[in-house]
Amino acid sequence: MTTTTIERQDCETSSSNIAVFETNATWRDGLRTDVNARQFMIPVDEPPELGGADSAPNPMELLLAGLDGCLAVMIRVVAAEYGAEVTAIRLVSQGALDVRGFLGTAAVQPYFHKVHTRIEVATDLAAENFDAFTHAVHNRCPAGTLIEAAGIDFTIDWIRV
Amino acid sequence: MTTTTIERQDCETSSSNIAVFETNATWRDGLRTDVNARQFMIPVDEPPELGGADSAPNPMELLLAGLDGCLAVMIRVVAAEYGAEVTAIRLVSQGALDVRGFLGTAAVQPYFHKVHTRIEVATDLAAENFDAFTHAVHNRCPAGTLIEAAGIDFTIDWIRV
Repeated sequence: MTTTTIERQDCETSSSNIAVFETNATWRDGLRTDVNARQFMIPVDEPPELGGADSAPNPMELLLAGLDGCLAVMIRVVAAEYGAEVTAIRLVSQGALDVRGFLGTAAVQPYFHKVHTRIEVATDLAAENFDAFTHAVHNRCPAGTLIEAAGIDFTIDWIRV
Repeated sequence: MTTTTIERQDCETSSSNIAVFETNATWRDGLRTDVNARQFMIPVDEPPELGGADSAPNPMELLLAGLDGCLAVMIRVVAAEYGAEVTAIRLVSQGALDVRGFLGTAAVQPYFHKVHTRIEVATDLAAENFDAFTHAVHNRCPAGTLIEAAGIDFTIDWIRV
């Protein structure tokens, strides 16, 4: 584990705007893998119907968790730009994929063909700014824009509560 | 939280090959969000340099954790198709992004421009099958193919140990 293509040092040298994130993972048994990110351990497994022991979330659930967390961060970041308070955020995300892709039994894309997120947000943001606010969150969220760039049908329902 | 675009029932009705994954998240405070996926809780936060309290992995680290877990699952699945044993897997993943994208301070893509994974695998797979094996893992992995479909420069270094 001594060489990598992306060197933190290189990136910092070339541009102070580049952030590099890193994980270090060890497969345990069955379909269980323990992933370390800095001081945190993120276990990954599969449910029994996908061949695992159901000891942890599965990889696709972690992608959706990253999406949820990323959208929540962006809501806070963009609201602050408007000088608005946020008092509650709830998110429900769903992603659908055709299992024949990773099983190799049909020539279909292995990744999500559809992702949907429902967001409930409580904020004192002025009503006339709400559309611009939601667009900024949607268009600047690293996880959401990654999903969109993959050509996935990605939609967000915004509910102001 | 009563309506969603993707209905599990609809998908199951239209095709038994469609799997739907779901998360349900609640923002706590600062940049901390607690995400539930079935019986599992996945906390998300940001490190201090990104404005968080550093209580959990950040969203991009969760995406990389999902990638690592997904690649490990695919290694096991594809090795089994070859009748091969796998005795060890280690993965190091890195993703680089320009923070000006999510900060909204420059017109750059908010998501990773580069992702690299180094995989060490110990297996009794016949040497002549190793290239086909790694290609199958790469091309059928839901998380990896999602990253690739987004146009990200995604590379894997395979090391047989």
